[in-house]
Amino acid sequence: MVKRKTDHQVQLVEKLRGGEGAATVERLLMPAELCEKSPLFAKITLQPGSSIGYHIHEGEMEAFYILSGEAEFLDKQETVTLSPGDSTLTQSGEGHSIKSVGNTPLELIALILYK
Amino acid sequence: MVKRKTDHQVQLVEKLRGGEGAATVERLLMPAELCEKSPLFAKITLQPGSSIGYHIHEGEMEAFYILSGEAEFLDKQETVTLSPGDSTLTQSGEGHSIKSVGNTPLELIALILYK
Repeated sequence: MVKRKTDHQVQLVEKLRGGEGAATVERLLMPAELCEKSPLFAKITLQPGSSIGYHIHEGEMEAFYILSGEAEFLDKQETVTLSPGDSTLTQSGEGHSIKSVGNTPLELIALILYK
Repeated sequence: MVKRKTDHQVQLVEKLRGGEGAATVERLLMPAELCEKSPLFAKITLQPGSSIGYHIHEGEMEAFYILSGEAEFLDKQETVTLSPGDSTLTQSGEGHSIKSVGNTPLELIALILYK
């Protein structure tokens, strides 16, 4: 099955997880298409200054893969700067937040897998 | 956990699945990091003319998300052209192949999930 970019479900979510600004969430595939193994396989775009607030994942893990832009990523208690090509992993029981801190939009792939 | 681009395992695989040329497989996370739910979450790069040969997935599904370049994708019996932003899904029991047909490298995200 092929899904064109224009077929993807796109949502603009304000203050995602209590963050600042808005996040554009483009679902590359829907949960039902992913055999219910994953609630989210998406490209997320955050304009400069926008963020996804700190939250803890329970019963699932989330990976990010940075496509473009620059991010400030809070990994449990540590803040690190991410660049294109970097990836992150937040296991069940752990928390994270991410903010777009460059001059261009932060684009990333987000993948959540049920534990 | 943060994995820098330089921390990723990168393999150059010749004639992947019987295809032409070589594929660069950069694993964004390793299977053990993905709770053994996924054997592959990777960025794959195919130089122009290179391909991943036709193969059938059994007991797992695979998604592609095109980042750059142009692809000729054989989806079961139908050949379609893919551009950046398009995604594909190959369910268990189905087959696919993909070839880099543009003038620039084809880059894609590949995600396999066990059924």
